[in-house]
Amino acid sequence: MGKIRENIICTNGKKRAEKLIEETTDKKPLFLCVGGTTETAKIPGLSMAGKNPEITDYTPTADLEIITQGKPITIEDVPATPQGIPTPALLTKSALDLAKTPKLPVNAGMKVKPSTPIIEVNEDSGNSILEKIAVKHPEQIYKNAEKTGKALAKLADYLIIGETTPGGTTTALGVLKAMGVNAENKISSSMPDNPHEDKIKTVKSGLKNSNLDTGDLQRKPMEAIKTMGDPMLPAVAGLASGSAKFGPTILAGGTQMTAVLKILAEKDRDITENISIWTTRWILEDKSSNIVELIKAIRDIPLLAVDIDLSKSNYYGLKAYEEGFAKEGVGAGGTLIETILKTKVNESAMIEKIEQNYEKLVK
Amino acid sequence: MGKIRENIICTNGKKRAEKLIEETTDKKPLFLCVGGTTETAKIPGLSMAGKNPEITDYTPTADLEIITQGKPITIEDVPATPQGIPTPALLTKSALDLAKTPKLPVNAGMKVKPSTPIIEVNEDSGNSILEKIAVKHPEQIYKNAEKTGKALAKLADYLIIGETTPGGTTTALGVLKAMGVNAENKISSSMPDNPHEDKIKTVKSGLKNSNLDTGDLQRKPMEAIKTMGDPMLPAVAGLASGSAKFGPTILAGGTQMTAVLKILAEKDRDITENISIWTTRWILEDKSSNIVELIKAIRDIPLLAVDIDLSKSNYYGLKAYEEGFAKEGVGAGGTLIETILKTKVNESAMIEKIEQNYEKLVK
Repeated sequence: MGKIRENIICTNGKKRAEKLIEETTDKKPLFLCVGGTTETAKIPGLSMAGKNPEITDYTPTADLEIITQGKPITIEDVPATPQGIPTPALLTKSALDLAKTPKLPVNAGMKVKPSTPIIEVNEDSGNSILEKIAVKHPEQIYKNAEKTGKALAKLADYLIIGETTPGGTTTALGVLKAMGVNAENKISSSMPDNPHEDKIKTVKSGLKNSNLDTGDLQRKPMEAIKTMGDPMLPAVAGLASGSAKFGPTILAGGTQMTAVLKILAEKDRDITENISIWTTRWILEDKSSNIVELIKAIRDIPLLAVDIDLSKSNYYGLKAYEEGFAKEGVGAGGTLIETILKTKVNESAMIEKIEQNYEKLVK
Repeated sequence: MGKIRENIICTNGKKRAEKLIEETTDKKPLFLCVGGTTETAKIPGLSMAGKNPEITDYTPTADLEIITQGKPITIEDVPATPQGIPTPALLTKSALDLAKTPKLPVNAGMKVKPSTPIIEVNEDSGNSILEKIAVKHPEQIYKNAEKTGKALAKLADYLIIGETTPGGTTTALGVLKAMGVNAENKISSSMPDNPHEDKIKTVKSGLKNSNLDTGDLQRKPMEAIKTMGDPMLPAVAGLASGSAKFGPTILAGGTQMTAVLKILAEKDRDITENISIWTTRWILEDKSSNIVELIKAIRDIPLLAVDIDLSKSNYYGLKAYEEGFAKEGVGAGGTLIETILKTKVNESAMIEKIEQNYEKLVK
């Protein structure tokens, strides 16, 4: 895997990535974190973004509180997998702390509103993709978000857009499949043991319940979201579309962001010139998924990944990232890359900050 | 009245105003417009920010839609006084169009949410000041807004904060009186014929119903808002407090902003060093109110007023501003001043743009 800078790996679009890194080094971005919840996350076996499926309604709420208010407020504990591995919001918070990056949370449709000022582009949480309608008004969410993206892009050198959406890899698979992208067994999970079968089974049932075959909605991204997606997807796509007219726009996340890329590629192909995905090495190393091929199959934009080694950590909850737990989310990879580009802090300083936040919030 | 620049008048804090103008000329501000509604606006005789008291619930909704989406969406018509004089949002929109100023709407507590992405610092509309509790959680609104102000101040050279709150002059009077500022007959109105008696009677009843005398809450701004205010006041004060730590912060409005100034002066006197009020000449010329004296009584910060002559307009709805209708609101004065400082457009170009928007939206 090609190292493009200290602690940054580049696998796709290397030539454009070099230019992108020049354009984003020592600049002042704005980090947007988009929260969404769905009933899809509560289908047994799919989401590990919480100790049990019901609590996934609170995961984005707490994630957004951690990055804006410094700690969870609505619930007591930091969100964690059933094994107790804490949310990547800890990594994001550490990155934002180090780089002093301005951040704003965005509500794309959350069951439980966080206790923080928030930009609202939609109010309604998503249904299950097993129902006919998973997201009621994707076009309205997209338009609202696009306006927000335009307005906010003027306020920063570039935008980094992260997300927190339990069950989001299943809805991403649903949208990609409806749009004809061969994504089976390529979508990641917050578990080392990726529950592909459960996800594929759910997506197939969802398509069937909506009378759809794979690829039926190839040119209809909003229909694909409506039947098989989640409210985060049109929100992130809209924000990116509004922002990418003005300059570099970073989708900060793992394989879910390939669904956003597919939506954007169909909505307005030219816009993807300014889009790249920034993620973590744990996503690249995940043998149960393949973000590199997914991006190539859609549009070969630059893919950067932050390379920090948490096996050196003193805490099992962080070491576990090296075993494939959690891996990415809440814009962790993207904000860590930004921190490297802006502050030139080294790996051990980043790990130290992450451990500090772990001690403060988890222990 | 002292002209400090072409089409800009300065009455208070001239020395600091000179420095402020240097600091804000050719800079890139962000305009925030805060919407709030209250039951106070529906007390007969108080608010003219709508054709009838009940419709004032929709006025901030439409105002925010006009400045962010270009036209009212939730209701059909542009808000107007009972005489048909249109909202100052037309002037604000014209200023923002000319200067291409980035803008974000803020929900401080609105009965009807606008159809636009919005930053939410509070959800609950205000009660009547005749009730014991007019605003449920002013401290929470203030804190939410303060965090938002801090985050947004980092994204712009300076912040301009406007508001749209029907009945807001009565609640401003209520807060000022509760805090011991002699504001009777000094607070403005959107009518040439200022209903002072009705306002004073309402405020006196409100104080009585809360077992308060004038000045009882001199050092307790949050208590004053809770019993006698509206949700816009802690939102604007909080945004300004968060922003003023970083640089110049403009309260864009008329006499209502003196209540915000009083709140800030009690919360954190040092902060007011960076605060100024930008308004319109129509407020200065209003013989039924006295913003200059109000500011002097609280803290003598710079007061600038935009001086454009709408008597030259072809439309009665705009000419009427010269007769004392509407006068100010939705940050009209502040955004017009910013437009002059940034674009150097002259008076006739501004009037032409306002007439264009009048033709498009009102006629």
